[in-house]
Amino acid sequence: MSVDTTYTVAGMTCGHCVGSVRQEVGQIAGVTAVDVDLATGKVTVTSDGPLDDARVRDAVEEAGYEVKV
Amino acid sequence: MSVDTTYTVAGMTCGHCVGSVRQEVGQIAGVTAVDVDLATGKVTVTSDGPLDDARVRDAVEEAGYEVKV
Repeated sequence: MSVDTTYTVAGMTCGHCVGSVRQEVGQIAGVTAVDVDLATGKVTVTSDGPLDDARVRDAVEEAGYEVKV
Repeated sequence: MSVDTTYTVAGMTCGHCVGSVRQEVGQIAGVTAVDVDLATGKVTVTSDGPLDDARVRDAVEEAGYEVKV
């Protein structure tokens, strides 16, 4: 199975922000790709199994940003 | 958040099969759309939150088919 989970993340303003989110979220077990659209704040996380939602939210906060509900 | 989870389902051979899978999977809480490609067996389940993987597998079995790993 393949899972694409799309979040809206607030607070990213530049390529450095994008890199931080990609790095933190990319470390989560099972995640195979992280696609970030800076203009819209959309972060799409691709995983090879069910994604641990709480871990993604923690990773985004760890990077210094916030997942909108 | 929006979640697209793609499974490969074995055993569907016609439109009736597709309808059965759509109906069973569509009843799962949080599921907003079920897209079935009969030719490939790909079933994409869209949900507005984390999807309960076990429930999807049960629903597919309930309809009479099998989720490939």
